[in-house]
Amino acid sequence: MSRRIGIDVGGTKCLGVLLDDDGTILAEERRPTPKETDELVARLCELYGALGPADSLGVGVPGLVTRQGMLRAAPHITKVADLPLRDLLAERLGHDASIDNDATCALLAESTVGNAQGARDAVLVTLGTGIGGGVLAGGVIQRGSNGFVGEMGHMVVDPEGPDCPCGRRGCWERFASGSALAHFGRVAAEEGTLPTAVALAGGDPSQVTGEHVTAAARAGDEAALAILDGFGRWVGIGLVNLTNLLDPELFILGGGLVELRDLIVEPIRHWLGQLLYAPSFRPHPRLEIARLGQRAGAVGAAMLPGSVRS
Amino acid sequence: MSRRIGIDVGGTKCLGVLLDDDGTILAEERRPTPKETDELVARLCELYGALGPADSLGVGVPGLVTRQGMLRAAPHITKVADLPLRDLLAERLGHDASIDNDATCALLAESTVGNAQGARDAVLVTLGTGIGGGVLAGGVIQRGSNGFVGEMGHMVVDPEGPDCPCGRRGCWERFASGSALAHFGRVAAEEGTLPTAVALAGGDPSQVTGEHVTAAARAGDEAALAILDGFGRWVGIGLVNLTNLLDPELFILGGGLVELRDLIVEPIRHWLGQLLYAPSFRPHPRLEIARLGQRAGAVGAAMLPGSVRS
Repeated sequence: MSRRIGIDVGGTKCLGVLLDDDGTILAEERRPTPKETDELVARLCELYGALGPADSLGVGVPGLVTRQGMLRAAPHITKVADLPLRDLLAERLGHDASIDNDATCALLAESTVGNAQGARDAVLVTLGTGIGGGVLAGGVIQRGSNGFVGEMGHMVVDPEGPDCPCGRRGCWERFASGSALAHFGRVAAEEGTLPTAVALAGGDPSQVTGEHVTAAARAGDEAALAILDGFGRWVGIGLVNLTNLLDPELFILGGGLVELRDLIVEPIRHWLGQLLYAPSFRPHPRLEIARLGQRAGAVGAAMLPGSVRS
Repeated sequence: MSRRIGIDVGGTKCLGVLLDDDGTILAEERRPTPKETDELVARLCELYGALGPADSLGVGVPGLVTRQGMLRAAPHITKVADLPLRDLLAERLGHDASIDNDATCALLAESTVGNAQGARDAVLVTLGTGIGGGVLAGGVIQRGSNGFVGEMGHMVVDPEGPDCPCGRRGCWERFASGSALAHFGRVAAEEGTLPTAVALAGGDPSQVTGEHVTAAARAGDEAALAILDGFGRWVGIGLVNLTNLLDPELFILGGGLVELRDLIVEPIRHWLGQLLYAPSFRPHPRLEIARLGQRAGAVGAAMLPGSVRS
């Protein structure tokens, strides 16, 4: 029986899991994500040591990962660029490591033991600080010519929209990520139309977060529910764009925002149905939450060694 | 030696070709595209008769084509909906016919005998009255869960943009198709900033077409060149969105607008480079014109029987 370790490098924390052959999680560990390259490699080795011994290691990272395991750019981890992560880990650990994009890892987990089992054409979208994703097409997890498939968070949906850290304007993640939800809440608070959330923020509109908006919505506040509806429309616009391009049977939503499933799934499903092209001439894609939740990336990372990806 | 017939059903005309085993065009015929379902089937049989005898027939149609050869909706062919084209043709001809989306056919041709030979990840985009496309991912032509892959013309790039015949607003083809180019020209003409094109249109700004804009641009008119630059930026925005999602090594441009290659390719290439996400951390996708030009759809349709698609 083999024991596999997977680590999901997030913008703020690293989650490591130890899996058995069946994909059962035997142990898990969390550590803060460091900001410096050297510390990142050391932190991954530390997590590996804490969970090990094991037969293999896979790591999922948010950003552009080449087929050679080089992390070329990671917008939400500062000071990390052109990092030969696979080689550095192999050198430190004395055996091979597999590296891929975190959302591609999440898709691997969901298609192996989660809600995309048996699917042929599916798109996984992670809604978190930003938006990432993975693409299953024709039954194969796609990686593209460089390994960079799934950066749909930077799909421009409004060329005159707000500036994005990527250097463009109006990227989808400016409207449909956790950061966007917080932004919409703050704007409404500062306009005076979100008093419940402002009260939860201690009376200061500039301190309103996504959590205040969702807490107000849970309490039935109409203005907060309207913000979630508008947010769901933006998520829906992007999902419809992906449907037009890839015709998936299924969307899987992952990332931190899936903790809000009771508040966001219905607005997103509503708008997906409303905005779909030729809605009466096609089955509508199903919408599911990642069964593995926030652990999908780490579990999928553990499954990387030996996996089939395009 | 087998003889294969392919027919590309366009918005205004049907182009039929007779191919030999090597993909060489032995004969071709054109007929106007009828507007009624019954006439469409009769017209296809007429073209088949004019080119035949042959061993197989493939037909490419603009719209949503199911895996069962049903044309569910074709925005640019009125009165055609839910047409069981494959079954109707088989009944009339006494043997099987293969049916697929016209842009998917064009991609099949380009990947077999054209500019996508040897490519693993490529996207073909047809710029015509509207925008269609085909997706090659992991070396396989993708069709999606229903057969509807590649409707990227209806990717929304500005939710407050102009109305689209599909029922949405701000679809990519409102900004980056032949119709869009004509629209930009007419707007500039009516604002009085495009005198050369207006003169070519006989002095009436409301009569300015895409051809007048491109004729003025060929004559060196700065205002017309600026319109083509703006058009190239919109094409580039969409290609960058596709790159973020699918990471292709190559884009192939097809459709009627490729006749303007000397005027449009450089602006599109410029903007693709300008707008790409993380441009210094990746090879830029190549941009090619369909080698088979406007015949790509018909040639690919002839190649449908027995072809490998997902």
